[in-house]
Amino acid sequence: MGFDAIEVIVAKRDRGELSAAQIDWVIDAYTRGEVADEQMSALLMAILLNGMNRREIADWTQAMIRSGERMDWSALDRPTADKHSTGGVGDKITLPLAPLVAACGAYVPQLSGRGLGHTGGTLDKLESIPGWRASLSNDEMLAVIRSAGAVVCAAGAGLAPADKKLYALRDVTGTVESIPLIASSIMSKKIAEGTGSLVLDVKAGSGAFMKNVDDARELARTMVELGTDAGVRTVALLTAMDRPLGLKVGNALEVEESVEVLAGGGPADVVELTVRLAREMLEAAAVPGARDPEEALKDGSAMDAWRRMITAQGGDPDAPLPKAAESAVVTAPASGTLVTLDALKVGVAAWRLGAGRARKEDPVSAGAGVVLHAKPGDEVRAGAPLMTLYADEAGRFDRALQALDGAYEIGVDGGADLLPLVIDRVTA
Amino acid sequence: MGFDAIEVIVAKRDRGELSAAQIDWVIDAYTRGEVADEQMSALLMAILLNGMNRREIADWTQAMIRSGERMDWSALDRPTADKHSTGGVGDKITLPLAPLVAACGAYVPQLSGRGLGHTGGTLDKLESIPGWRASLSNDEMLAVIRSAGAVVCAAGAGLAPADKKLYALRDVTGTVESIPLIASSIMSKKIAEGTGSLVLDVKAGSGAFMKNVDDARELARTMVELGTDAGVRTVALLTAMDRPLGLKVGNALEVEESVEVLAGGGPADVVELTVRLAREMLEAAAVPGARDPEEALKDGSAMDAWRRMITAQGGDPDAPLPKAAESAVVTAPASGTLVTLDALKVGVAAWRLGAGRARKEDPVSAGAGVVLHAKPGDEVRAGAPLMTLYADEAGRFDRALQALDGAYEIGVDGGADLLPLVIDRVTA
Repeated sequence: MGFDAIEVIVAKRDRGELSAAQIDWVIDAYTRGEVADEQMSALLMAILLNGMNRREIADWTQAMIRSGERMDWSALDRPTADKHSTGGVGDKITLPLAPLVAACGAYVPQLSGRGLGHTGGTLDKLESIPGWRASLSNDEMLAVIRSAGAVVCAAGAGLAPADKKLYALRDVTGTVESIPLIASSIMSKKIAEGTGSLVLDVKAGSGAFMKNVDDARELARTMVELGTDAGVRTVALLTAMDRPLGLKVGNALEVEESVEVLAGGGPADVVELTVRLAREMLEAAAVPGARDPEEALKDGSAMDAWRRMITAQGGDPDAPLPKAAESAVVTAPASGTLVTLDALKVGVAAWRLGAGRARKEDPVSAGAGVVLHAKPGDEVRAGAPLMTLYADEAGRFDRALQALDGAYEIGVDGGADLLPLVIDRVTA
Repeated sequence: MGFDAIEVIVAKRDRGELSAAQIDWVIDAYTRGEVADEQMSALLMAILLNGMNRREIADWTQAMIRSGERMDWSALDRPTADKHSTGGVGDKITLPLAPLVAACGAYVPQLSGRGLGHTGGTLDKLESIPGWRASLSNDEMLAVIRSAGAVVCAAGAGLAPADKKLYALRDVTGTVESIPLIASSIMSKKIAEGTGSLVLDVKAGSGAFMKNVDDARELARTMVELGTDAGVRTVALLTAMDRPLGLKVGNALEVEESVEVLAGGGPADVVELTVRLAREMLEAAAVPGARDPEEALKDGSAMDAWRRMITAQGGDPDAPLPKAAESAVVTAPASGTLVTLDALKVGVAAWRLGAGRARKEDPVSAGAGVVLHAKPGDEVRAGAPLMTLYADEAGRFDRALQALDGAYEIGVDGGADLLPLVIDRVTA
């Protein structure tokens, strides 16, 4: 079944529909190096500008799945539940959520990534726990999930290798911002991970990849369709990312806040979203006799699952977390209501403090980040601390403070105009 | 002046207008290898789909000109006149036209290319003349033009190298069919060649690059604007390429027909177009005291210029031209009027007979091609020869005959429905 790369490019360029055979061929030939980068990037730009329909997106996703191995959890005696977030500032939800859902009766295999840009990666956060390691063999993965009910680890290179190659290409060719390509990239990995059900947390707002709710809803709808077409029970929540999630942004800082939630405390928004996502996962996975997530937080069983999970991957849940050597306090310039607190600006500040990386090769600082002392809607007093910045070197504070320029607004009367935490729910 | 390739791509992707500085940078950085092929092809696809305005196209063209050297004919004591054809089947007009315009009083420097695909290259045709050589140094070029009034030779690699690199990329990435990119590619070379005036022959019809008249008119308008904006007096004729031009298609065959025209004979359409283009060139170049082209054909002065031009480049104008070893006659299946004779199908047949090349490295056959015995509008008799095919090996006839399937139609009553030879004239 030989096609010609130019023919496929021209078909999409001229607003045609690509056949399943054309899509299979072009993904496979690109993975093998027969279709060149400059041909694929021209095709990607044509897709970005002319779109793909539901069938084309499904075929594109399946072709990426077929480019690699597919995991199989059928040896497990309970349903598996998976969750994916499109990423945001202070989004540490996977950390409390995975052990919580495990404590309620599902198996939770969470294959995660490292962060790039201002939104941190789940693995970067967990790696701030002394001894914890992200890379597991398939056998180790099964052992951890059997003993702890949940595993959070690095996705192996064998899953959807076409997506890895395509993503690197899109990153340098201005072809990232395409909903069909974003949706198929996420879903090819999630489907290849072999889960039976999937809950998507699609974030909207300045700190999210999707800045506005309509785009986020379109991405959610596309991913739910893709999951459904692939036989995975899929549901999506649209959630707010106009302000940071929780009060702590950073690597060790977010582990700290996650442990607070598992201990029955933590900020209200983190608790609310964790519980809501847990209920969605248990429902999507149809776990027989599932326990109530709020109960599992209260009675310590979620914390027990967390400790088992961290220990099984070499981590010490009781070891003190790394702390940054330097700190700087930002105080409120006036008294009033904190009306806005821009997620993106806080995210960029944390990034510049050392919590994130600009290039894949860069290390991240475990202790760096931002702790918020007030959230939008809160009353603040002139001169009182608004946030504390943490970094390994004091030299980082200047550029972080620049990033925070205009990040917040204090009003004399009137409350904050914020997105609801859960904006909408999208189902097939 | 540092830009980021992704920024430039995203600007055009999002329907923005590229600044002159962005265009300068991206063309220069691509020529230097700093912008990668996969980035440029994404930008080219965005340009193809989202377009460029008149200013952007002019800046793009100027940036390509600046990527290389620019020729200078100011040492000559008469105006220079240049002509460019977008190419067609049987289009040998440059061969009689260059010496004809020289005989009328202008200097005619014609930097030409080799053919790729079904339309032959001017250099390929002239190389069928024993001894003639296409590659000249700049000094040789000046010497030929001073002695013969005209020179037809290969464009040096130093002219618009960015265009060469871009064209090779467009060829494999489905980004050829963009009027801004086609126009800037042609005009960057023509302007770099340093002519003071330019007449464009933009062909429309099955055998041309532009299949329909509207697209051809748009290309002509864009090129006339580009020439005008660059200070070159530019005019374009839209001419017919629904049927072949003249009666002979091939390399030596087209030289033969050109010599017939220079001897005062030749097919009416070739004579008419040659004379019309000569008048346009003399007018655009504002040659003082220019002679009349019809006169120069009749009195032998155009033929004298041809002989001087061929001789000055090592060719023997009296040497017999190469002939193909094999021939095959196609006869009319019925009596009536030849209603259509498709230019593209005849061109593909000539190509398969050996007159053209599929890859740049391929050689061409000097003797191969097609001689027509009737043109649309002519009466034909059942069994009489319609065309003769020539090839070096008889094995080529089968596939050539396949290309001619449906190439012509013979009607019992009613004439041919053809485009007028000169469809329109486009000026600034």
